[in-house]
Amino acid sequence: MDKIRRVLLVGGTHGNELTGIYLIRRFQHAPQLISRPSFETITLLSNLEAIAAGVRYVDQDMNRCCDRAHLELPEPVDYEVRRAQEINRRFGPSGSTPADVILDIHSTTSNMGMTLILDDHHPFKLRLAAALSAQQPDLRIYSSVNSGRQQDALRSLGRFGICLEVGPVAQGVLQADLFQRTEALVQQILDVLNQQNRDEPLPTVQPVTTQPVTTQPVTTQPVTTQPVTMQPLTVYQYLGTMPYPRDTEGQITAMIHPHLQGRDYESLNPGDPIFLSLTGETLLYTGETVVFPVFINEAAYYEKDIAMVLTQRHDLQVDFAETL
Amino acid sequence: MDKIRRVLLVGGTHGNELTGIYLIRRFQHAPQLISRPSFETITLLSNLEAIAAGVRYVDQDMNRCCDRAHLELPEPVDYEVRRAQEINRRFGPSGSTPADVILDIHSTTSNMGMTLILDDHHPFKLRLAAALSAQQPDLRIYSSVNSGRQQDALRSLGRFGICLEVGPVAQGVLQADLFQRTEALVQQILDVLNQQNRDEPLPTVQPVTTQPVTTQPVTTQPVTTQPVTMQPLTVYQYLGTMPYPRDTEGQITAMIHPHLQGRDYESLNPGDPIFLSLTGETLLYTGETVVFPVFINEAAYYEKDIAMVLTQRHDLQVDFAETL
Repeated sequence: MDKIRRVLLVGGTHGNELTGIYLIRRFQHAPQLISRPSFETITLLSNLEAIAAGVRYVDQDMNRCCDRAHLELPEPVDYEVRRAQEINRRFGPSGSTPADVILDIHSTTSNMGMTLILDDHHPFKLRLAAALSAQQPDLRIYSSVNSGRQQDALRSLGRFGICLEVGPVAQGVLQADLFQRTEALVQQILDVLNQQNRDEPLPTVQPVTTQPVTTQPVTTQPVTTQPVTMQPLTVYQYLGTMPYPRDTEGQITAMIHPHLQGRDYESLNPGDPIFLSLTGETLLYTGETVVFPVFINEAAYYEKDIAMVLTQRHDLQVDFAETL
Repeated sequence: MDKIRRVLLVGGTHGNELTGIYLIRRFQHAPQLISRPSFETITLLSNLEAIAAGVRYVDQDMNRCCDRAHLELPEPVDYEVRRAQEINRRFGPSGSTPADVILDIHSTTSNMGMTLILDDHHPFKLRLAAALSAQQPDLRIYSSVNSGRQQDALRSLGRFGICLEVGPVAQGVLQADLFQRTEALVQQILDVLNQQNRDEPLPTVQPVTTQPVTTQPVTTQPVTTQPVTMQPLTVYQYLGTMPYPRDTEGQITAMIHPHLQGRDYESLNPGDPIFLSLTGETLLYTGETVVFPVFINEAAYYEKDIAMVLTQRHDLQVDFAETL
């Protein structure tokens, strides 16, 4: 696989998510923090008008309009579409300076902690996720395969798109502890990308194991002597979304149940409380299987009618033998 | 003093503060919850367009445009001013159905817990605050005298204006635990108003004391035999606001220090950390007196350049002998 030559760090795809915006500003003032020997690191504030206005978006959600249909619109009116086209002309696959990795930094009102979002299970991304998890066991990996993000998110403009979600933090608020944890995670990501690029050993939780010596007679086939190691990785994979209960006029009639609030990445079992209606009734989860809700009570998802995203938990083994 | 005849409960003065909005909707569907024998209770969603758009305001902050200047503007263009005039024509002092009490329900991203805001120290309001504190020791009383709120806030349209601030909760989020606590507090307020109206004893923390029997010879002057009690009340009184550090271009260069985040109503001493700059330096509080910050890191105050509001703590004694 080709090496990573250019990494694009992005903030402000949603203009009211201040963690990424101020982190990018910090990096722009101190570029040495994000410089690594084996690739170029560039920073970008993406949705400039939304940032200036302190809102999620001006005309439409920038993280849903980077698909082919929007990118090929002639003379678009909406600011976000014009800006997406501009970013694609610079950093897209056929751009002037194409980005190998786009790391888009978001924040959420949900209790997502430090979450890495992968839109596909490319071995390169799984190795990155497993290496980061080895260093930071409380890192969560959310896999959005089938959610549509890999077609229309801003990060989809890069060869490898990755998203950070950090929370809980209110929209329009800069919170120092999350800011510092996000910066530390970005630094670790850049370090691992640099290690992958240089074929250096990645951080592991399990000791590196050598392949068992074969007892078969030596043949002319070359015997692999390279150390290999299978590293554990827990991935929470998108299943679907859960809407809010509504009345006939479309008004929300129930809130996230207090027992579920803040319980992102915890198991939700059949019969568990899920909503509390405005009239005081508890509504139970009627699904038949255990799921793991994430993005519980995300402010920006009210308009998308998403009370939470349901995921399935998978425990994978990632092969560290292959390197870039 | 005249009795309270009409109480107006308001939500949605800021369209992205969902606690008040959904609480008013709940009361509109179940008016028996807020009905009390001695007065009429009415509900109002104030900033309808901002509620529909899910934003704080459409044209300007509705809670800053209820002053005389705005109310007397002929043919105003801004939605909030038109709406303020409409509300004033109904519930203002010369309105068709004037409100004796306006209780405006707000929420905040700051850790304000359950806060009652008084814009003046009218004995009626102090008794209400002390009676509520007797029932709910973690209730906080913030006094905004001299902050300008008593001239331009929506609640200033009532004979007695009172504000609830509940937090922390993100803008655009409905959080069940705070919703329930806010409802309980509104119920208590209505109960105390009803008790005041009917000259019933108010909830106290200290036993009711009878005035000492006079040892002077009986005269023709009537001797007061009414029980009196002085009740304690802690009030956090507005001193001024603290802006964010900024660079020459007006960009914010520091965040609320992690040690201060969430410490609303706690003492801030000279030399305590107050900001953490984006370059990692800790900035200290350079004031010479102990203060009590509130509204720390409120999302909506970034545009007003308020990092926090500084208050002074006063321990008062409130006379429960006087009743309505």
